[in-house]
Amino acid sequence: MGWLSQRLEELGIVLPPAPQAVAAYVPAVISGKWCLTSGQLPFLDGKLVAEGIVGDSITVKEAQEAAKQAALNAISVAAVAAGGLDRLERVIRVEGYVQSTETFHDQPQVINGASWILQEIFQDKGRHARLAVGTNALPLNAAVEVACIFEVRE
Amino acid sequence: MGWLSQRLEELGIVLPPAPQAVAAYVPAVISGKWCLTSGQLPFLDGKLVAEGIVGDSITVKEAQEAAKQAALNAISVAAVAAGGLDRLERVIRVEGYVQSTETFHDQPQVINGASWILQEIFQDKGRHARLAVGTNALPLNAAVEVACIFEVRE
Amino acid sequence: MGWLSQRLEELGIVLPPAPQAVAAYVPAVISGKWCLTSGQLPFLDGKLVAEGIVGDSITVKEAQEAAKQAALNAISVAAVAAGGLDRLERVIRVEGYVQSTETFHDQPQVINGASWILQEIFQDKGRHARLAVGTNALPLNAAVEVACIFEVRE
Repeated sequence: MGWLSQRLEELGIVLPPAPQAVAAYVPAVISGKWCLTSGQLPFLDGKLVAEGIVGDSITVKEAQEAAKQAALNAISVAAVAAGGLDRLERVIRVEGYVQSTETFHDQPQVINGASWILQEIFQDKGRHARLAVGTNALPLNAAVEVACIFEVRE
Repeated sequence: MGWLSQRLEELGIVLPPAPQAVAAYVPAVISGKWCLTSGQLPFLDGKLVAEGIVGDSITVKEAQEAAKQAALNAISVAAVAAGGLDRLERVIRVEGYVQSTETFHDQPQVINGASWILQEIFQDKGRHARLAVGTNALPLNAAVEVACIFEVRE
Repeated sequence: MGWLSQRLEELGIVLPPAPQAVAAYVPAVISGKWCLTSGQLPFLDGKLVAEGIVGDSITVKEAQEAAKQAALNAISVAAVAAGGLDRLERVIRVEGYVQSTETFHDQPQVINGASWILQEIFQDKGRHARLAVGTNALPLNAAVEVACIFEVRE
């Protein structure tokens, strides 16, 4: 068992099953040393963890949970694309989109939900560059969408 | 003639002419094995294919056509930057921004317009990671904006 | 002194001090030949240069200044991550998010504020691919957010 599998076991984290590839695009792609995931929604057992607008029907705390779930989904799809969890070497970049009212400006707090879990799992290899922006509308009325770039072992 | 030129001929697709470089930024850049395009608007013969807000004045079907056109423009500018169409090896990532009402949540359906044409052209080399998000405002009131990353032959 | 330090001296530009790394994410990351910055807000001396919505309380000119400041902050954090300003070789991509009313559609004009200063500093190595989109809400009510990708000397 590799370091990342061990780390998840230590933390008692079971990754969600990776969604299947859909027609024209795929959950994650490998190119050179990088694995790029598609934008992940906060699905858990086939349902969205948080549906609605942050600053209105969704609180920061709920949105952070959603960002965490989307990040776990990103790890899951990246692990499949990379040929195993332990081939994920390091987190490079996190892109976080928060469905927000126009007066909500704490997108970084929300995306911390993703950053914290990535750092907890990857530790010093979890330090990433990050984008956190608001948007008026996300797919399926999800509160957040998160895409990740990982470095993979070649 | 390379495989991609042949494939376009088979499909009867004639790429739009690539826009010229503007002052401070360029339509596409090569770095290592990657070609990154700038965000492409759905221009056809100098006019936008779809202007307005999806979910309001623009239908999903119209927006899909716009996403397709933006993707064709992306191929066109990438081909110029790469030194020829047949140097485009593979599609890595598609970023799709959809000018949406705040109650429109089918951005993935819209961006399928881009994904489908990329897959039709590149076939198994067209499978890409994807981001599809909404936004309240795009340049020139375009309904969609699409940026692509391609892998290029070195 | 390397070429980029000299160029900044010629232009009389003093880079802003790079913000410190925060907990779970960092201002910029190096992976292979690339340096990716986190989304930069237009901070100058600890205060935002432009707070508010472009097309409403913020003019294009004010937003351009903000985009310029965010780009300078991006250079600053990239220089620290790369181990020195002169290890930044070239600008690859600029991502610009503009907090906009839904009737404001001149995001490219706004992000020109970032592109112009990058080109002035990096000259022919400053030509980059670019994304410019609107959004209804940015962190801290900033008018713009800018992330950059640089090529670094290995």
